[in-house]
Parts: sequence; structure tokens; C-alpha cells
Amino acid sequence: MGIRLLFILLCLVHIPILGQESEVRINQNRLESRIMELAQFGVQENGETERVAFSDADIEARNWVVQTLENLGLAVSIDYAGNIIGLRKGRNKEAKAISFGSHIDRVPNGGNYDGCVGSMAALEIIETLNENNIKTKHPLEVIIFSNEEGGVMGSRAMSGHLSNKAFRVANSTGYTMGEGIMRLGGDTSQIKKVVRKKNSMAAFLELHIEQGAILEKENLDIGIVEGIVGLKWWDVIFIGFANHAGTTPMNARQDALLAAAKFIVAVNEVTNSFEGAQVGTVGRIKAEPGAPNVIPGKVVTSLEIRDLSSQVIEHVFNAIQAKAMEISSASGVQIEFVPLDTTADPALTDPVVQKEIETVSKNLGLSFKYMPSGAGHDAQDMAHIAPIGMIFVPSKGGISHSPKEFTSAEDMANGTNVLLQTILSLDQKLD
Amino acid sequence: MGIRLLFILLCLVHIPILGQESEVRINQNRLESRIMELAQFGVQENGETERVAFSDADIEARNWVVQTLENLGLAVSIDYAGNIIGLRKGRNKEAKAISFGSHIDRVPNGGNYDGCVGSMAALEIIETLNENNIKTKHPLEVIIFSNEEGGVMGSRAMSGHLSNKAFRVANSTGYTMGEGIMRLGGDTSQIKKVVRKKNSMAAFLELHIEQGAILEKENLDIGIVEGIVGLKWWDVIFIGFANHAGTTPMNARQDALLAAAKFIVAVNEVTNSFEGAQVGTVGRIKAEPGAPNVIPGKVVTSLEIRDLSSQVIEHVFNAIQAKAMEISSASGVQIEFVPLDTTADPALTDPVVQKEIETVSKNLGLSFKYMPSGAGHDAQDMAHIAPIGMIFVPSKGGISHSPKEFTSAEDMANGTNVLLQTILSLDQKLD
Repeated sequence: MGIRLLFILLCLVHIPILGQESEVRINQNRLESRIMELAQFGVQENGETERVAFSDADIEARNWVVQTLENLGLAVSIDYAGNIIGLRKGRNKEAKAISFGSHIDRVPNGGNYDGCVGSMAALEIIETLNENNIKTKHPLEVIIFSNEEGGVMGSRAMSGHLSNKAFRVANSTGYTMGEGIMRLGGDTSQIKKVVRKKNSMAAFLELHIEQGAILEKENLDIGIVEGIVGLKWWDVIFIGFANHAGTTPMNARQDALLAAAKFIVAVNEVTNSFEGAQVGTVGRIKAEPGAPNVIPGKVVTSLEIRDLSSQVIEHVFNAIQAKAMEISSASGVQIEFVPLDTTADPALTDPVVQKEIETVSKNLGLSFKYMPSGAGHDAQDMAHIAPIGMIFVPSKGGISHSPKEFTSAEDMANGTNVLLQTILSLDQKLD
Repeated sequence: MGIRLLFILLCLVHIPILGQESEVRINQNRLESRIMELAQFGVQENGETERVAFSDADIEARNWVVQTLENLGLAVSIDYAGNIIGLRKGRNKEAKAISFGSHIDRVPNGGNYDGCVGSMAALEIIETLNENNIKTKHPLEVIIFSNEEGGVMGSRAMSGHLSNKAFRVANSTGYTMGEGIMRLGGDTSQIKKVVRKKNSMAAFLELHIEQGAILEKENLDIGIVEGIVGLKWWDVIFIGFANHAGTTPMNARQDALLAAAKFIVAVNEVTNSFEGAQVGTVGRIKAEPGAPNVIPGKVVTSLEIRDLSSQVIEHVFNAIQAKAMEISSASGVQIEFVPLDTTADPALTDPVVQKEIETVSKNLGLSFKYMPSGAGHDAQDMAHIAPIGMIFVPSKGGISHSPKEFTSAEDMANGTNVLLQTILSLDQKLD
């Protein structure tokens, strides 16, 4: 009786009780219910959900999130880039915010978990803190980023990396990004005002589904993200000579598609020849003129290389390029690499935050591994302005960007508990 | 004086004078002028000519050919398939016709020589015979086939191999084949009436540009076509698993495009591993979803194999299929072959006609080689109803189906003289 009274008193004066806070757990059923409730925004006749950024469904879902955050007692605003910001005051008015969140917009024909897990986890954590009367030292900031799938729009705006050129690009709703920002309650003419200064946040944390099959295959609960891989894109152009497939003997051909095929095989072999987790992909190909009875004279393929290290990307590319030159010499087909704008620098997560996620996972009795994030995330841009951390939970079959995307309620709850406890630990340890 | 009188008398009584006829030559300048005149039908602002079958330009050019044939004294008709038929009577009313000709329709963005050389050569031969007062024993039949480039329409109709299904297929003019036949003065409802009986012609001969670079490279005047290669088409379908290129490690991929690339390389290697002139081509490829950051889950390619022997086509295909199964097993990508309707049996030319072309070429002091035709021709369908022969003349750079297509006036004249002399020799030797 005496101890319980002391606890209540301590709570009231906001003195952290480490032993108690570390035992606080989120409500798995409530988390799962919110995931299911969110999935209803944009549901189609076939039972699947469509909620591309700027769509009516996106706006309805955002309104629901805003209402929920307000119900949870947060001060909610929409910034000029359309990001939803929910602020929960901290004990220390001078302290920078610990920020966390994700996004609720989806790719066309996407799933219920990508972005949604991190977003609903943020809501669940606020509700859990409220229930347990925990007031953190740092203010807590829930951020639901706008239009992540259409080019990490909201987080780019916040890190100062969204160019005005992007406003003219339309997504599958037909709205341009400029029009979309206005639809979401933002304002393109004021967008520079959303840029945050470097080190203006104490930390930014994002919980996300892995979107790969590594955790599932290795039967692990938690992925501690070492960083978000950088990526580079090229167009690779093969110029041979289009000719009649019937009248041109095999030894007189300059077959651009044959050279491209050897190149695609080489990309795979070269990428595999390096130690490490780098990936090299050819996902797009076009052969001209593209008739079964004409030897292709021109082929254009994509080339994408990703790794946590820009240097590794460069080494892999150089080795691929050298192989391409060999193919070119042997075939008489010219090969040219055209670098594209679509590049992203690797974004490493903060070692202190990584270590905290590890400690918390151990304390929660969860298995884990350190791993790169092969996919881009809002956290990638947040890395420009804050120490970042990312927590992965398993994706069934590694499937993502598909209605088949699935993460179990237990896995979501594990990740959310890790996120909650990491926030509480950092709250203690950070200034 | 006495000899000249005797010659005139002999001509009047239509007694063949071998020594004299073998010295008759066509008029190279007139032939070249007609090629140039024909090229004006459909000429565009950029100086190039467009004359796809059924276009206004095609109809205008056909009217000019009909008028020219009539001016040369032939009995001209248009059959129900739109073929232009010009008949020159022979001395023997019982004799079957020796037929020859080609086509004047062109592929989109095509050249001035494909089909046109054989067609203008036919006109030139008639004019030369007229000038020299030569009346052959056999009737001579000039055939300008309709819509060769859109599926050897006229010759298929004549050989009984044009299906009614084809009438619904539109070409680049927008007209369907059914509409096109009516535009040319044919009648789809009567089309079965154009079918010729087997052995109803004494022979069918076609002069054509090589459309390859073999004669040019070997510095030869004449190609004696051994046969027109058969061809088979397949769609090859690769089913892997589409996945995120960032989150799917290299060793966890079922990359349909990587399997397709290995297949394309294998098609080339397998085709080259056989002795002979067979060709194997992958000219069309489509990867889905086709984004640089998504591992392709599905790829469809074409496969075409051509050879003079159906058995060789089968052997090459079997070896390619075996290699595909190895690629499939190693990659986990399913590979399926779907045979397409677009097949043509090899059509061998007649040995007697081949030998006659050889003798004539030697007599004319022209160099020659026996070779297959890798491209399809109207003669291919004529082979169903007549002994056929084909004469090739060099194509500069092997280029065809392009505005860059070129054959010199001298080469055209050589081929036309060979055709003329072959007709005259066969006229003597055939019943």
C-alpha cells in the first residue's frame, strides 16, 4: 500500500521511475484494431484498399488521424508540406523534441502495413503514455509524413530537399504534387518555412515493416537498421544495328538485345562477386524496333545499385562498366551509361540510438539483428537534421507494395514496445 | 542482207533462234528510270516514300502499273485478291504460263527496291521482248502481288492459304485486309476463285534484292536461291517473382529478366553450335512491372528460328528448350514456350530452274552463288502450285526495309537479264 502510494506521488511530480516505465507495454489489440480501422479508408469493392496520396481516401484517413491525435490530447497542426504534426508537451520546456512517426499514404495496389504500422504505433504509444500517466522530459512529436510513396515529399520538404520542380509531377490520382499539397492543407508558396534546422530534434525514430524476408527467414523479432542504403540509377543504352532476322547471318549481326542480355547477366555476376549486402538490379528494358523478325538495333535498360556505402556503389558500378566495355568490344555494340537524377545518399542511423534499440530489445526478450534498410524511408531525409533510428518488424514472405503484405499483430506489438521503450530510454539519456 | 532477211522471216513465223535470243539484253536506263518513277508514288516532304498496301499511294502506283502493262500490249486484269495480272499470249495455246513478278507495296519507312526491282524487271522484260519481236511458246504472265508486306496476301490467296480470319487484321493505314482488298478492286466474297490448281503454271520466277550482305561481301553478281527458309515463332514466358529491388537480397530473388537474359544468350549460343545457315532471333522483349526499382516478375520474349529444313528448325528448338529448362531449374523462374500461328514451311526452289539460272548466269559472264533466302517472298506460296525459281541481286550493306536500301542499276540490270534469259531458256525446255 505504501509503495503504491509512493508510485502515484512520484508519477504526479513526474519523477522518472525507471523500473516501472520499463514495464509499460502497449495494447496489442488496440494497435491491431487501429491498423484495421485505417485500412477501411479507401477500401474497394474487391475488399482491397487504394489510398494513394492526395486521393479522397488519403484525405479522409488523415482527418481521422488528426481527430485521433486531438482526442489523445496532442496539439495538432498541418505544416505547409501537408505533414500532420502532433505535439505532446515535455517536462523540460527547453528540451528538443523526440520525434517519431511514418506515413499512411500507399502505393497503388499496395498493402495495409507499409507506413501504417509506424503511424499507428505512434498513436498507440501516445495512448499508452497517457494511460500510464507518463510525462517525458522531452516533448514528443508524432509526425505523419505526407506523400511518402510519391517521393518522400513531406520529409524532403522538412529536410530542405524538396525542389519546386517536383510540384509539377502528377501521381496516379492525376493531381500534381503542387495541387496535392494544397489539397492536404499545405501551401506550396510557404513550403520553405517547414524546413527544420540541423539538430533541431533530439532524435527521429521510425518503426517500419522490413519489406524483405530476412527477419522471417531467420526467425527474428526485430531488425535494428544500420542505415538506409543509398542508390544510384543509370540508363544504359545499347546501340547495335537493326536488320532483317531472316537475311542477316548469325556472324554478321550487331544485336543490341544480345549485348544487353550479356550485360544483365554481368550485372548479376559482378554484384554477387563483392562481399556485402549490395544489390544491383535491371528492372526495365526496351528493345527497338521490337519485332520478332527484326534484330534489335537499340536497347535501353535501367541499372540500379544500392548499398550502405557510396564507395561500394562506386566500386560495383566501375566493375559493371568494365564488363560492359568487354561486351561492347566483343559484339560491336556501343554501350553508354547515362546517370539519372534519381540518386539518394546512404543515411546511417545513429550508433547511440542503435545501441539503445538493442538494449531495449534484449530487455524485452526479443531476438534481433543489425541490418541495412534496402528501401527508402522518411527517416532517410530526417537524417539530415537529426540522429535517427529505425526499427524493423518481419514482413510475411518479404512481400510489400502488394495487397498480400502482412505483419502479425504480435510482431507489430513487439516493434511498438521496442519503439516505446527506446523513446523512454532516450528521454532519460539525451539532454 | 540475206541473213538479216532470213532472221526477220524466222521471227515472223515464231521459230526460235537460240543464238539470237540469248544475245537479247534489257535496257538498264529504262529499268532504272521506272524504278525511280515508281518511287515517286507516295513520296513525302522529307523525300522518302511511304507506300503501305491499301494506301492512296499504293492504289495510284498500281494504276500506273496497270496502265504501263496495257501500253505494253498485255491483257490486264485484277483478280479477287487484288493481284495485278498481265497476260502476254504465247505461240502454243495449250501451254501453261511462265509466270514472274513481285510486289510494289512497301513496309512503313521502307525502301525503293524491295519488291519493286522484281516488278519493274517484269515490265522491262515484256518491253524488251516486244522490241525484239520475240513471241514465246508459253504464255507469259506478269503478276504484281497485292499486299506482300502485310502477310504475302495476294500469293497466299492464289495458293489457297489465305484464311478469312486475316481479313480482320488492319495494317498501318488503318484499313483491315478485308477493306483493303475491296479498295484494290478485289472482292473478299469471291476470293476462293483466285486459288490456282497445283501445276497450273509452267514455272514461277521472282527476281528480288538479297536483303542481306552476302553477295556484296563476297563480291558476287547473282544469288541462285536454293529455297526460302521456313520459320517458326514462339512467345517465351518467364514467370519469376516481382519484388522490391532494395529489400530483396541477391540470393533471394526470382528475377524473370535475369532468366530471360540467360535465355537470350543461350539462343545465340545454341543456334551457332549447329553447322549450317540457320538463324535464331529474340527481337521482342517486355519486362513487368518494368520499373528500375522492382525485380521483374514476368518477362515475355519472342523466339524465331529459320532454316531451309524443318528438321533443323526442330533440332535447334529442342536444344534451346533443353537449355531453357536448365536456366529454369537453376533460377526458380518458370519458362514456358507458346508456339504462335506465324509459321511458314521451307519452300525449296526447283532444281531444273536453279540449274537454268546457273547456266544463264555463266553465259552472261556473271558470278553467282547458291544461297537460301532468309526472308519470305511471294514465291514461297507459289511453290505450292508451281516449280519456282528466285534470283537475288546484291543489297548495299545488306540493308533492307529502310530508306537506305540500295541496289545499283547495273546489279538490277544483271538480275533482269538473268531473269529474261531464264524465261527464254525455260520456254524452250519446258512443255
